[in-house]
Amino acid sequence: MPILVVGSVALDNVETPFTKVNDALGGAASYFVTAASLYDEVNLVAIVGSDFPQEHLDFWRKRSIDLEGLQIQDGKTFRWVGRYHMDMNSRDTLDTQLGVFADFHPVVPAKYQKSQLVFLANIHPQLQLEVLEQMPQAQLTVLDTMELWIMTEREGLTEVMKRVDVLLLSEEEVRQFTNQPSLVTGVRELLKLGLKYVVVKQGSYGALLFGADGTYFSAPSYPLEEVIDPTGAGDSFAAGLLGYLSTVAPQANGSYDIEDLKRAVVHGNILGSFTCADFSIGGLRNLTMDDIARRYKALVACSHFDPDWQLAR
Amino acid sequence: MPILVVGSVALDNVETPFTKVNDALGGAASYFVTAASLYDEVNLVAIVGSDFPQEHLDFWRKRSIDLEGLQIQDGKTFRWVGRYHMDMNSRDTLDTQLGVFADFHPVVPAKYQKSQLVFLANIHPQLQLEVLEQMPQAQLTVLDTMELWIMTEREGLTEVMKRVDVLLLSEEEVRQFTNQPSLVTGVRELLKLGLKYVVVKQGSYGALLFGADGTYFSAPSYPLEEVIDPTGAGDSFAAGLLGYLSTVAPQANGSYDIEDLKRAVVHGNILGSFTCADFSIGGLRNLTMDDIARRYKALVACSHFDPDWQLAR
Repeated sequence: MPILVVGSVALDNVETPFTKVNDALGGAASYFVTAASLYDEVNLVAIVGSDFPQEHLDFWRKRSIDLEGLQIQDGKTFRWVGRYHMDMNSRDTLDTQLGVFADFHPVVPAKYQKSQLVFLANIHPQLQLEVLEQMPQAQLTVLDTMELWIMTEREGLTEVMKRVDVLLLSEEEVRQFTNQPSLVTGVRELLKLGLKYVVVKQGSYGALLFGADGTYFSAPSYPLEEVIDPTGAGDSFAAGLLGYLSTVAPQANGSYDIEDLKRAVVHGNILGSFTCADFSIGGLRNLTMDDIARRYKALVACSHFDPDWQLAR
Repeated sequence: MPILVVGSVALDNVETPFTKVNDALGGAASYFVTAASLYDEVNLVAIVGSDFPQEHLDFWRKRSIDLEGLQIQDGKTFRWVGRYHMDMNSRDTLDTQLGVFADFHPVVPAKYQKSQLVFLANIHPQLQLEVLEQMPQAQLTVLDTMELWIMTEREGLTEVMKRVDVLLLSEEEVRQFTNQPSLVTGVRELLKLGLKYVVVKQGSYGALLFGADGTYFSAPSYPLEEVIDPTGAGDSFAAGLLGYLSTVAPQANGSYDIEDLKRAVVHGNILGSFTCADFSIGGLRNLTMDDIARRYKALVACSHFDPDWQLAR
């Protein structure tokens, strides 16, 4: 089942305490299409400038990624410059150059209508809404965002939240949006907006799935010895989640089986972990489904324990 | 199998963003004996002043807690005053009054020699060493510590680490001791000291078990809606871990089955979660093994996922 994504395609300068890269392929949609195309066809809605390197387009065309929805305009590609702190969990944005992104309005090609799964990556809520309006038949819509929109576009963002099925947030973003010190209470407030699921991304601690139906699932993270660059881990998480769901059929009522949703969150963690192992999309470039399956088995082995314990009395 | 603990018994003033308590029963050993006595006999080695309320002694005597090793001396009981920050994960120590603890030297009564399981709660490494020397036949020794000793008594602490089987640390303490940004690398360094296991306590994120034999296990945490007071959660974690192990037999070679160690870490998380639900030992006071079993089942339900996933191709 094809997946549609709208989001940024960018060129990044990233600095970590250990090294740095310049002009690296970045942007939420870049990570997403590269990772999700391991599972199924991906349809990209985004914009780049005329300076965008041809090699990236060639790389994507060789995968099952459709670029008809990628606008290429005279001007400069979106640029992001960031620096990570010593703990690799927090970062500062040093510079942002919107370039052609400043006047971007997403246009969904007619043939993308068959995409039943939609990922609204982290962009201005108004643009996310424009895509939703062009995809009335989508079966599962997943929303990502960031602190900037929570702080400056709360009303528009809330409107998008009310119209999607699944919301992905970090723990901090749940607190920023709800002002609740308790994560569980905050998520419950979010679910009241009409969301079916809230997925809380916890980086090296894994991820939590909360359902409006009371579902709660805690997925373990893959223990990385070394984190080279966490940029794009959240977008790759979304790709693993939607990628996995693209390989299974929803139930008769259109919703997904809870066991499939759990597997999907685990795939999210796995794809995120591969992304952290290199700069840019380096950790995804040569990834195979066998690599994913091996890490899946490793996560089962390190997180399952005797389900039937009872105290001998 | 009886468990011996040496550690502080204190009276605490604790302030959280929401409320405060004064003169509450506190100290690592207090949490430990209260929680561990749910599983088995517990032998306490500690000191209190003549001001220590009789009601606490009466409460412990009604459980399977032996107080022969509790010295009661003229003077004041150890006092700790602390304040938690808004996120309830970090705290400031506002005041510490050592009282009779200043000149404490642990004396292990002869009848405690049958304690095969030993918990060295967070006290000065020299005192921990004195207990180890009085317990030459202990089968499993578990060590806790804190930033203060990592920073000021590194040499003595390292000596204790070399002589115990299991080390409990927070993620931050692993980084403080090893100076390694990578948790996995830091733990590997610790294991080289001769430890059999390192358990990393991650608070609301659960706990990780690393073995010198390559074992790796990630235990989920129980999702608390409300954290009232996390003081003592780490000591209760230790009590769940050692308490569970006291109910099973080690293997012929003296070491524990890995499946038992996994269950033990899960019990640790469970006991820690109950402690967070109230001030002082309030969350442990009326706890039963049925409560623990229910939470164990809940953790299985929220963390296990299909172990056999393979992509349909």
